[in-house]
Order: sequence, then C-alpha cells, then structure tokens
Amino acid sequence: MAKYALKIEYDGKPFKGWQRQADQPSVQQTIEEALGKLEKNVPSIVTAGRTDTGVHALGQVAHCEMQKDWKPFRLSEALNFHLKPNPVSILDVARVDDEFSARFSAQERQYIYRILNRRAPATFHRGQVWRVPYFLDVDAMQEAADHLIGTHDFTTFRSTMCQASSPVKTIDEARFEIHDTLEGREVQFHCRARSFLHNQIRSLIGSLERVGSGNWTPDDFKDVLDAMDRQACGPVAPPQGLYLSKVRYAEDVFTGEGSHVI
Amino acid sequence: MAKYALKIEYDGKPFKGWQRQADQPSVQQTIEEALGKLEKNVPSIVTAGRTDTGVHALGQVAHCEMQKDWKPFRLSEALNFHLKPNPVSILDVARVDDEFSARFSAQERQYIYRILNRRAPATFHRGQVWRVPYFLDVDAMQEAADHLIGTHDFTTFRSTMCQASSPVKTIDEARFEIHDTLEGREVQFHCRARSFLHNQIRSLIGSLERVGSGNWTPDDFKDVLDAMDRQACGPVAPPQGLYLSKVRYAEDVFTGEGSHVI
Repeated sequence: MAKYALKIEYDGKPFKGWQRQADQPSVQQTIEEALGKLEKNVPSIVTAGRTDTGVHALGQVAHCEMQKDWKPFRLSEALNFHLKPNPVSILDVARVDDEFSARFSAQERQYIYRILNRRAPATFHRGQVWRVPYFLDVDAMQEAADHLIGTHDFTTFRSTMCQASSPVKTIDEARFEIHDTLEGREVQFHCRARSFLHNQIRSLIGSLERVGSGNWTPDDFKDVLDAMDRQACGPVAPPQGLYLSKVRYAEDVFTGEGSHVI
Repeated sequence: MAKYALKIEYDGKPFKGWQRQADQPSVQQTIEEALGKLEKNVPSIVTAGRTDTGVHALGQVAHCEMQKDWKPFRLSEALNFHLKPNPVSILDVARVDDEFSARFSAQERQYIYRILNRRAPATFHRGQVWRVPYFLDVDAMQEAADHLIGTHDFTTFRSTMCQASSPVKTIDEARFEIHDTLEGREVQFHCRARSFLHNQIRSLIGSLERVGSGNWTPDDFKDVLDAMDRQACGPVAPPQGLYLSKVRYAEDVFTGEGSHVI
C-alpha cells in the first residue's frame, strides 16, 4: 500500500457537502468513484476539513491509500480525467509517509469568505459569493475582527450542532481585503486557526456584516463575542461565500512532483 | 415614449448568443421578456454588439423604448427582479435622447479575453475562461500583439461568415495582463477598436496562443497578419473566454442615476 495526499479544488454548489451520504451527491463520493476507476477496493479517503453543503475549496487536502505505486503526476492526471464533468480538480498529489493523516497531521486551516458588494445580482459568481447590496464599511469590520485574534471562548459563534468538546479556539489571522474585480467591489475575509468550530466563520461573517452595514459598532461586536451566548450572534452568513483555501502541515507535503502549477 | 440605455452583464453559457432566435434561448429574448412584465408591446431592443453563443458581457449596452416615464433606478431594479434566475444583470440604466442608438452611436467596443493558464481543469470558472494547460510566454504574446495596433487588413483574422463590407479595421489597444488569482495564473487580453470583424478577437487569440506556446515567433505572427489570408490563421479560440467589457459613446450616457455601483 502507498499513501498519497491530494490537494483538491471544488465548487461546492452541486454537492451536499464533503461527507459521503446515502442519497445525496458529495465531494467525497465523487473523488472515491474516480479512485475506483483506477483500482478496485480503494479505502475511504480522509479529509482535513469536512465542508458543509454549498461550501467550496481552493486547497482542501485528503489522503488516500493505493495498492499500486503511482507516480504523483500520473495519479493527478488520471483522477482529473475521471472526475470530469464534476467541478472538482486535483491540483497536486504527493506521496506521504504511513503516519501522515490529512486530518490529524493538519496544523492550521485557512478560509476565505467572499462578499460581492454591489447592488446588481451576481451573474458569473452566482453560488460562489455572498452578494451584499449596500456599502460595507470594511475599516469598521476590520476593527471588529481585530478582537478575534488570540484565544477566546467562541460560544457565541458556534452552531448548536457543533460536536467539539470545547468552545475555546485560537484565531491567528482575521484580515479583510478589498479587491477591485471585473464584476465590482469584492470584500474578502481571510481567517486562519488550528481548527474551527462548526459554522464558526459563517457566524463571524454574519455578525461582522452587521458592523459593515452600520447596524453595530466594532465595540458591539466585542460585546457579542464576550457574551459567550449563541443568542447574541447575528444572522449566519450563507455557505456559498466560504472557501477552504489552505491546510498547513509541519512540512509542506506538496513538493511539486504531482504539481499542476505550470 | 421614453428611450433608455441599459448597461448589461451576462454569463453567456446558457444562451445561444445575444440575438433572438426561434427555438433557442438568447440574451435579447430574456431581457425583452423581463421588459414585457413591465409594459405591454415593448419594441425590440437594440444592442451595441451581438455576442456569439457562449460569449459573455461585463458591460454590454442596449437601448429600449418605454411608454411610461421610468425613473432609471426603478427600471433597473424592476428588470433585475424579473430577470431572475437568469445569469443576466442590469448594472445601470440611463434616460437617453431620441437620437441615441446603442448600436450606431457607439464609438468604441472593448473586449477582454480570459485564459486560465494552469494544468488542472477549471472548476469555478468552467465555461467562463479558456483553460490552457501549458505555460504561455506572455512577453512573446505581447510582442506579437504590438503588430496589431493601427489600421490593417484583417482578412486573416476574419470568419468566412463575416458580413462586414471591408476587412480593414483600426485597433487602438492590444494589451496582455497577468493576474495572480485564487485559481492560479490568469492571462487577460484587453483589446479596443471602433468595431471588430466577426470572430476577430477569437481568431487573434488562437494565433497569439501559438506564439505563447512557442510554436510561432512574434515575427511569424506578423507574417500571418500580413498574409491577408484566412488559411494562415491559427485555430480559433473558444467562445467562453471572451467578454464584451465596455462600449464607449461620445458622452458617458450612464450618469449614475440608475447606477448599481454602491
């Protein structure tokens, strides 16, 4: 058996999330079926982060075990061939040690939340951004987000479905960027932590939007965080703006052997 | 009667081009049906550029005539409401003089051609870029494109279906940009002219790609242009990378009254 790490990009729109389910399309099942075209009886793949319905990935990582010794580049090419026409692409493949786990070896997850901040409905990025049709004050949003850095009890920003044993998490980055795109003003939220609670980023964005729209002050946002009370949270932002952008490991497992970067 | 100019964005993927056809969905028909929800017997709309099947627009302009005196902002909001769920958005509306024609008053058309230059198949921008899976030498492409500036006989880069009376056109800009996007390296070609021949930009890009891939030198490209022979043209690039980005008039008709810019 040989173990491989896969770096995966996907549009979450047609999927009921990452995790395999009985009657619904999932990213996991789509990739496992492509692996099944290469070898019989491929074991289930293991991921760094099980994204929810409609959530996207720019750099999801999963590991798989194969009987044959595949050249990483050949494996990525073969998988991309069999993944067609699904909006799932293998960006890179690396051979990894037996001890490696895409889930348990991960040291940090990075997410980007994308807001298309314009009046007109989205066309090209429909299902790929949250369109907010009034001006967002990103300076105020950043002032509020600065309160997130460090270790906090995030009970306010945690789904009632969350299965984590503790609501305490450490956020290492919570940074807004403004991009002038072909479709107008895009506000991106870049967030990094070892791990997140269920719905944490969508809950944070829903409340940060209250600040950007002028309904809350940055201090109100801090009060909401400090309340440690789910009732204090603003509306949860929709899934289609959320992207798992990177998973970091002790060593960068992707050495470029299976790389699709040209 | 009152005349209005509409600034329109659309994803060309689900349409058989701009122009209304008997049995196929078109952008024109989609907008005329939305107008038909606002007033009875709205005359056909007139456009600055009839885009082909699969071609997109970021700033198409069309004019329409209405019986009622609409506030531009109200008209854009009402149209966007009725355009749902089609990937067509009204970005701006302006009241214009009776002499104004979206087609005949246009002084310049601007197009952008988008190439996703990476090995892995496109996911988020499927149908919205041309994915070229090997490295493109954009400096060489720019050197070749510099030969396009000015007035030339573009017979080489003209569809055999083209109905223009002359193959002579004047190109005012032919500029490449490289963008580092969330999905990797994107090469954009920005091109401006008073008007274009049928398939001119897709024909140009198909030949410029030959230069970027190293199959042709920039001088070869100049020879192909000078040949004034359709047989000399490279393959025609696919429609999904092409965007009509702006139409320029003597005065900027869009004063912001109907603006969706926030």
